[in-house]
Amino acid sequence: MTAPFATLAEFRQRLADAPPPDMRAAEDAGARNAQLTKPPGALGRLEEVAIWYASWRGDPRPRIERPQVVVFAGNHGVTARGVSAFPAEVTAQMVGNFRAGGAAINQLAQAAGARMDVVALDLDRPTADFTEEPAMSEDEVVAALAAGWQAVDPEADLLVAGEMGIGNTTSAAALAAALFGGAGGDWVGRGTGVDDAGLARKAAVVDEGLALHPQAKDDPLEALRRLGGRELAAMAGALAAARAHRIPALLDGFICTAAAAVLEKASPGALDHCLAGHLSAEGAHGRLLQALGKAPLLDLGLRLGEGSGAALAMQVLKGALACHSGMSTFAEAGVSGG
Amino acid sequence: MTAPFATLAEFRQRLADAPPPDMRAAEDAGARNAQLTKPPGALGRLEEVAIWYASWRGDPRPRIERPQVVVFAGNHGVTARGVSAFPAEVTAQMVGNFRAGGAAINQLAQAAGARMDVVALDLDRPTADFTEEPAMSEDEVVAALAAGWQAVDPEADLLVAGEMGIGNTTSAAALAAALFGGAGGDWVGRGTGVDDAGLARKAAVVDEGLALHPQAKDDPLEALRRLGGRELAAMAGALAAARAHRIPALLDGFICTAAAAVLEKASPGALDHCLAGHLSAEGAHGRLLQALGKAPLLDLGLRLGEGSGAALAMQVLKGALACHSGMSTFAEAGVSGG
Repeated sequence: MTAPFATLAEFRQRLADAPPPDMRAAEDAGARNAQLTKPPGALGRLEEVAIWYASWRGDPRPRIERPQVVVFAGNHGVTARGVSAFPAEVTAQMVGNFRAGGAAINQLAQAAGARMDVVALDLDRPTADFTEEPAMSEDEVVAALAAGWQAVDPEADLLVAGEMGIGNTTSAAALAAALFGGAGGDWVGRGTGVDDAGLARKAAVVDEGLALHPQAKDDPLEALRRLGGRELAAMAGALAAARAHRIPALLDGFICTAAAAVLEKASPGALDHCLAGHLSAEGAHGRLLQALGKAPLLDLGLRLGEGSGAALAMQVLKGALACHSGMSTFAEAGVSGG
Repeated sequence: MTAPFATLAEFRQRLADAPPPDMRAAEDAGARNAQLTKPPGALGRLEEVAIWYASWRGDPRPRIERPQVVVFAGNHGVTARGVSAFPAEVTAQMVGNFRAGGAAINQLAQAAGARMDVVALDLDRPTADFTEEPAMSEDEVVAALAAGWQAVDPEADLLVAGEMGIGNTTSAAALAAALFGGAGGDWVGRGTGVDDAGLARKAAVVDEGLALHPQAKDDPLEALRRLGGRELAAMAGALAAARAHRIPALLDGFICTAAAAVLEKASPGALDHCLAGHLSAEGAHGRLLQALGKAPLLDLGLRLGEGSGAALAMQVLKGALACHSGMSTFAEAGVSGG
């Protein structure tokens, strides 16, 4: 499958064309939920997310059987500014670890019964340092969006888009600031573990980027091109493809959510097929989720990225659908009081 | 296997004999955790619970392969006082639903790859109404504790003890008040869905029970006998057996936690092998967990019982151990910066 866009303008049009949920399926799923053998509302958020999922699949009694995790990796010119506790070569080393099955996301994807794909994006060609010039040209950002779009299996029934990229919490903070306002200090966190000096450096680097790219505040896709990175663009492309295929998705942590926010700001409602998988311990993730109006399913202090928190949350969604679609109704079970 | 106690005094002794965790295994698990391919602490609570689990299994690199869910059902004389939105016959009907595989817990246990057992405790012989006399005789409460103890598979490596029993949120509230102080109004909730009048009735019934059984405040096991129910005693017995076999356990909601609290009050530390699986939306569950010093893994608004929240939390613990025991170390993966 090739991506159905060759320019940012065409990508923008794909977002505008995004299909709505199936409200008839949602209604039928709600009617089924009311008859299941439990007191009304006793499964809490599981009931709400099951009905939400049904609306996107257009099926009042769906199951999650083909979940997919895709991990995108990219390198960042801004690492030259000393914004990470790890050297840039770790990105490629971790891609090797993903392919060998040794990373956290491998274990969590396997536990969730998910197919896992790894897409390394021009690792030997880092993005430009955004304090000096735009991180990517239009061709580059479109290529990364397309790589993300193409990585999604159209037959998948749940998507997690994760990332690896030394330096990318700095890109994500710059992107968040451009999209939602505020300064670097409002959005940076410790990432893989920088000290206080590193944290101050990250905030200053973000502020420099914001000053150099005032256009980023006016156009979310332009913000992605100027301040983002290839793996961020690829996650945005993958989430847009999921919407086109009506595949529900779970957002991971700060970096994934910042990339996703580009879609929502470019086309309000573009993330209606996404739930927040978890609340990350990284910096301002909670603030970002709040700006998007998304309540996380899990809050376990994770701050690893890779899609790890969202992959764990897949189990919650799978459990919700197992209940919704597998339970007996009061009438079927011969239980009183339905 | 027969239960190693025939009286409450003997059960109390079994609690005092409970084995400690293996601190050497915990140390070795901590050393392994520090070498895994992730920034230090980036898996948040998953790291902490993996090391905790290792300490109970006495194995620095364990997996969860034989989880068990046991659902205990009992009937309550106090239902005569109009404390539930559902009629008492629903307990037996739901046992039929558990056995037929149609309840929420069946779906969640299956999703977690857990063996599920159902133990119906003398459903045709409800406990006495605790506003008139003790709910159980000593023989009856010991038989229920023993039924719980015997239901645990000694080869299991993770336990969830769940319950079903129309009226049992009232018993649990009375038990919690006896163990931790306060009046009925501090501990009752809406259970399966009583209205305001029903809620006031529950609080009054608990207060009557507390007034009739002042001895309950001085002895946790006596509180269980006088105010509890067979399924509550069985959950306590099952959790005590899990400790004896060094099987880690996940607490479910309000009723399970109230039953578990009996053990902790009778023998401080008796619940060190237990984590709180989730925070229930039922009444004072949060207050009960706080009194026990347990932070829940999940908070999804569930209030169903059956072990449902804890069964969902099994997936979090399984994910934690999959990461801990399955990930590569920095050295194994050839990743810099470990």
